[in-house]
Amino acid sequence: MKIGFIGTGKMGYPMAQNLLASGKELFIYNRTKEKADPLAAFGAKILGCPKEVAASSDVVITMLANDEALLEITAGSEGLIHGLHEEGIHLSMSTVSPKVIQEIQSMHAAKNQILVSAPVFGRPDAAARKELWIITAGPLEAVRKCHPIFQALGRGYSNFGEEPARANIVKILGNFLIMTVIEALSESFSLAQRAKILPQDFLSAINQALFRSPLYENYGQLIVKKAFSEPGFTLQLGFKDATMARDLVESYRVPMPYLDVVYWRFLSALNHGKAELDFAAISSEVFDSWEDHPPLK
Amino acid sequence: MKIGFIGTGKMGYPMAQNLLASGKELFIYNRTKEKADPLAAFGAKILGCPKEVAASSDVVITMLANDEALLEITAGSEGLIHGLHEEGIHLSMSTVSPKVIQEIQSMHAAKNQILVSAPVFGRPDAAARKELWIITAGPLEAVRKCHPIFQALGRGYSNFGEEPARANIVKILGNFLIMTVIEALSESFSLAQRAKILPQDFLSAINQALFRSPLYENYGQLIVKKAFSEPGFTLQLGFKDATMARDLVESYRVPMPYLDVVYWRFLSALNHGKAELDFAAISSEVFDSWEDHPPLK
Repeated sequence: MKIGFIGTGKMGYPMAQNLLASGKELFIYNRTKEKADPLAAFGAKILGCPKEVAASSDVVITMLANDEALLEITAGSEGLIHGLHEEGIHLSMSTVSPKVIQEIQSMHAAKNQILVSAPVFGRPDAAARKELWIITAGPLEAVRKCHPIFQALGRGYSNFGEEPARANIVKILGNFLIMTVIEALSESFSLAQRAKILPQDFLSAINQALFRSPLYENYGQLIVKKAFSEPGFTLQLGFKDATMARDLVESYRVPMPYLDVVYWRFLSALNHGKAELDFAAISSEVFDSWEDHPPLK
Repeated sequence: MKIGFIGTGKMGYPMAQNLLASGKELFIYNRTKEKADPLAAFGAKILGCPKEVAASSDVVITMLANDEALLEITAGSEGLIHGLHEEGIHLSMSTVSPKVIQEIQSMHAAKNQILVSAPVFGRPDAAARKELWIITAGPLEAVRKCHPIFQALGRGYSNFGEEPARANIVKILGNFLIMTVIEALSESFSLAQRAKILPQDFLSAINQALFRSPLYENYGQLIVKKAFSEPGFTLQLGFKDATMARDLVESYRVPMPYLDVVYWRFLSALNHGKAELDFAAISSEVFDSWEDHPPLK
């Protein structure tokens, strides 16, 4: 199976490396060519545009930052849709809106091409360790065909049926849950610290007592250590996900007050110039509301 | 070491059983004597009042529902404080307010008695399986003396230093975090279900992808199955904890908007007659806001 790979950024690069390491034949395009070039040393062929990549591949993976990039790469003048053969698979692994997924699904269908949506959970370090968890949705046979790709990239996958956009809803709601973890931990750390309990001790206790979860442990450590300057995932990208979650609220009319709270944390953090810090830096907005201020009686 | 045990309710009963099973000599009091009586068959001595229990014991454990019960059992006319010898230990394992713990700490100190606070994380089924996690605080030597008790009751413990009330702050904040899990899962299940994704499938995916946590798995299942009629912990007791958390907010002046949201879920659930349902039934208030109502355009 010949595989195309478009988007070798923070997430895409280690994913492409793992595909190459598993012996796959890989054709690569990246807007900033220099970021993809080192992969040539591992056997990848670097091509000049998405259309060329698609023409050389049975499955084209896209790993891009947002809806606009996905639309351009797919349907722009040199987009992959113009190169992919009939029955060829576009495997979209980006965290993008269900709406854009439905749009490009229709465009592919018109050309007898197949769209599988497969956004991933995990930061770049997890991608490098092949520990991603993949959420898939699309025509069953096409999902099955992609199985060796998923195996080369992660710990496993959960499939959500034939409608590609469902995978994106699950991914956005998963990111919403991570935001709630950041807010809830930040509020409890705040009160603990004010009561002279070290957040580090508190985190250790509640992880042993309650969660026993690597996610709580990892995000807890980022928040406790205020380790925001080397983002695995930027606050700007987190804000994009919060915005997509709000769009879902509007489409489906399901009140989500926890989303509202973190949404205004994001707005506040962006106003404070934190866009390029780690996602977990929204916690610093919680701390700002009390830290260095004596409790008024 | 002779151990007293006061309060053989849903939590206390299996804990007393585990202490007896580990070969400890146990003196028991319970307000409703019939609830304690079956423990006599396992070797416990059932006595007539807290004072008598304390007079027979080196360490008296209390496992009670709230501040009022703890005050009455400790300092009422037949309270344990009147029976406990000097250097005797009162091991308070209830989830009560830091304030009442400070009050009874002073009363014990005046009689040269020692208070250790050791509230527990885990429901009655976890207590029965010896899987509690215990949060301790109090004079170090006294905490050490209680070590064999903790071993007989749980998986382990986290110690928070000499000030007993600190353990209660940690416990209340831990329960706050559980409330945030219920709210966050309920909101995401709501949106998933509205988008025709089964909450059961969603829970399974996010637990594999993100949390990998027995707490998310167990509360997630309670919410998905709406299994509220056999409470391990009632909504009324959860409301007590939310109230104590709000008292902490007021004392320490740390804004906690996530607490505010779940607090009004509790109020709404109580108004809807759900006090004796499981704690997790606050999720039904989230579902009520959209279920059976078509999404308006």
